[in-house]
Amino acid sequence: MDYEQYFGKRIADLKADGRYRVFADLERICGRFPVALNHRDGKTREVVVWCSNDYLGMGQRAEVLAAAHEAIDRCGAGAGGTRNISGTNHYHVLLEQELAAFNAKEAALLFTSGYVANQTTLSTLGATLPGCIIFSDALNHNSMIEGIRHGRSHKHIFKHNDPADLDRLLAAAPKDAPKVVAFESVYSMDGDIAPIAELCDVAEKHNAMTYLDEVHAVGMYGAEGSGVAERDGVRDRITIIQGTLAKAIGVVGGYIAASQACVDYIRSFGPGFIFSSSMPPATAAACLASIRYLRHHPELRVKHQERAATCKRRLSERGIPVLPSVSHIVPVMVGNASLCKQASDMLLDEYDIYVQPINYPTVPVGTERLRITPTPLHDDAQMDHLVESFCAVWDRLGIPKAGEQAKAAE
Amino acid sequence: MDYEQYFGKRIADLKADGRYRVFADLERICGRFPVALNHRDGKTREVVVWCSNDYLGMGQRAEVLAAAHEAIDRCGAGAGGTRNISGTNHYHVLLEQELAAFNAKEAALLFTSGYVANQTTLSTLGATLPGCIIFSDALNHNSMIEGIRHGRSHKHIFKHNDPADLDRLLAAAPKDAPKVVAFESVYSMDGDIAPIAELCDVAEKHNAMTYLDEVHAVGMYGAEGSGVAERDGVRDRITIIQGTLAKAIGVVGGYIAASQACVDYIRSFGPGFIFSSSMPPATAAACLASIRYLRHHPELRVKHQERAATCKRRLSERGIPVLPSVSHIVPVMVGNASLCKQASDMLLDEYDIYVQPINYPTVPVGTERLRITPTPLHDDAQMDHLVESFCAVWDRLGIPKAGEQAKAAE
Ligand SMILES: Cc1ncc(COP(=O)(O)O)c(C=O)c1O
Ligand SMILES: Cc1ncc(COP(=O)(O)O)c(C=O)c1O
Repeated sequence: MDYEQYFGKRIADLKADGRYRVFADLERICGRFPVALNHRDGKTREVVVWCSNDYLGMGQRAEVLAAAHEAIDRCGAGAGGTRNISGTNHYHVLLEQELAAFNAKEAALLFTSGYVANQTTLSTLGATLPGCIIFSDALNHNSMIEGIRHGRSHKHIFKHNDPADLDRLLAAAPKDAPKVVAFESVYSMDGDIAPIAELCDVAEKHNAMTYLDEVHAVGMYGAEGSGVAERDGVRDRITIIQGTLAKAIGVVGGYIAASQACVDYIRSFGPGFIFSSSMPPATAAACLASIRYLRHHPELRVKHQERAATCKRRLSERGIPVLPSVSHIVPVMVGNASLCKQASDMLLDEYDIYVQPINYPTVPVGTERLRITPTPLHDDAQMDHLVESFCAVWDRLGIPKAGEQAKAAE
Repeated sequence: MDYEQYFGKRIADLKADGRYRVFADLERICGRFPVALNHRDGKTREVVVWCSNDYLGMGQRAEVLAAAHEAIDRCGAGAGGTRNISGTNHYHVLLEQELAAFNAKEAALLFTSGYVANQTTLSTLGATLPGCIIFSDALNHNSMIEGIRHGRSHKHIFKHNDPADLDRLLAAAPKDAPKVVAFESVYSMDGDIAPIAELCDVAEKHNAMTYLDEVHAVGMYGAEGSGVAERDGVRDRITIIQGTLAKAIGVVGGYIAASQACVDYIRSFGPGFIFSSSMPPATAAACLASIRYLRHHPELRVKHQERAATCKRRLSERGIPVLPSVSHIVPVMVGNASLCKQASDMLLDEYDIYVQPINYPTVPVGTERLRITPTPLHDDAQMDHLVESFCAVWDRLGIPKAGEQAKAAE
């Protein structure tokens, strides 16, 4: 085989399909979020970022940056090893304690990312619980899917957010086999939220563990912000709560929170945890400061929800087809890959608005969309500009409006 | 199944086997490396770390810390997204350019860790090159093994560092199938180094790609420090060079460097790259500063090798059984899990020396060892103390000396 030719051919196919990804080269400007510099062709230009997953702007909050600076001055840049071989720093210990308390669990475990947390925990459970069967929501994130596949246990996929379908599948499984029900709270591409209590009812009925990915909810839901399970008062019914430190927490990293025994088990047997260098002390320190801040500042969550609701309402009033999201995510349907890319390019080039197009395989073909994530730091003037720009782009490109899409679908 | 009971039972088994891991809770002291604070039972105590993988002490170098501070001030704490969705920061772009130049390759790609770099790249190649066969060195790191397993391609394991065995296996494989030969340069538990040129000879003869993990060599070998492939003058014969930013570079993260088409392929199809938030701008900035420094400071590498050679010589002169390492790693054989742990505990508790015991499954049963990693910052007084302490502990615990082990083996 000619490897170079093969790689080139596959890339050419992506380009022909309109699926080749060109990354927007940004330079975040601390203190001016959501404004950033966009680097292109050797020039830079200010844009307003409307698709950041730094959902609350914590990545530039003074307390978080001060903690990072201080930890760098105290401990240096890196951790210097895996957790077992000289890489456990006191900040890791403190952050794990904080994450346990934050999630109202006995213990917590840090990973280098939310991806690795999902991948490692689910593959370890699948591979080491004898006869394990994993029940996975149809819209689960790639990191869960890969973890489940890698564990090579039996698995069943239940219909998205459908407790009845889960019940049917669980009832058909051997009574004594260990079972794990894996799902997310907020699904980040549609903005819908899982019926956690109902899924727990079903899981408990069949003695299954529950595994909840709160990646798009951490920091943003519940009185102290640990996620939707907190908001819904069901944290004690979730066996393992998983989350990221890279989105609303504003830094990077991932975690699970669970019972002492369960955390110790993953700590002791999870390869992606054991065999990888730990996060820098300053990363842990910044996360710690961010979580401590978020636990005591519910007003940030109130403001966040207001911004998202306002954005949805204002776009809808103008006929822009917002999907029926019940969360902070504002998905706007375009329904065509090339049109979606054109709209995004036009917004960036002519309106200085950055919203990344979301295409297949992240969403199904025919449901390509622009995914807007308003934060508490997007002000009214920026929102006005967003709404006017969307209307202008919709007109210029002839993208169907809300009513028209409904008509087209009839 | 009673999950809690199961987890508890497996942990109890580990404890009974002497394999339960208790992490040393350290606090690195910037400016005083290799000295750190050890937190225990609510107290702290200064210890000298002799097992850090911050091999060159770059994690506390002023240039690296200044770069991190500056990037935090400019861009904040986190990147705010995956690389495709608002998470590409200009520092990522610059670091990827630097890594490409550093490795004398057309392009490079960043990952959140060296683990994810191996896992993602090898699984993507294995899963997407039709009929792919991977040939893997018998002592490859867990991250490569998991990546290869996850890709579910055919695979063959060749004898450690054995070109003849590789040749035999490659010759027996279908001529037209895509093939990848995956191995490391420096093996970190024994300190031996792969015969890279010979392995390339064999791979080329059979038209196989080569994949080289330089994790324990980056920063430390070659004129500019990109690894053993540079030192041996064979970088152009390696298809994909992989490395970490968490060891001698002193920060965190991982990368591959290869042709433009190959990097673009992994960038476009590797799930662990696509679906995970990117590293913080400050992490990328710190790595960039570290690599730029290392490229122009070969004297650090000279000093490093001198320290390692001195440590090996001095321990050997006193009969401490140093394995025949040809690298900067100084493995000292104990040969018994419980004795190894006792020696490590005694060194820490009574001599303020921290060397983590290395037990099964990281090394085979019966080859348990203490793995010392001298850095350019370990001074003569610290070395004197290390040697005397090792001799004292060897005597007190009756651990076999070099000659005695040979006798015991006869
Ligand atoms: C639902 C979900 N889980 C997990 C992850 C991975 O988390 P991280 O970005 O910390 O790797 C993501 C996306 O990044 C996600 O959307
Ligand atoms: C040979 C080898 N490859 C890869 C890794 C993983 O790199 P990282 O620590 O950056 O995840 C390690 C250890 O950490 C290793 O020893």
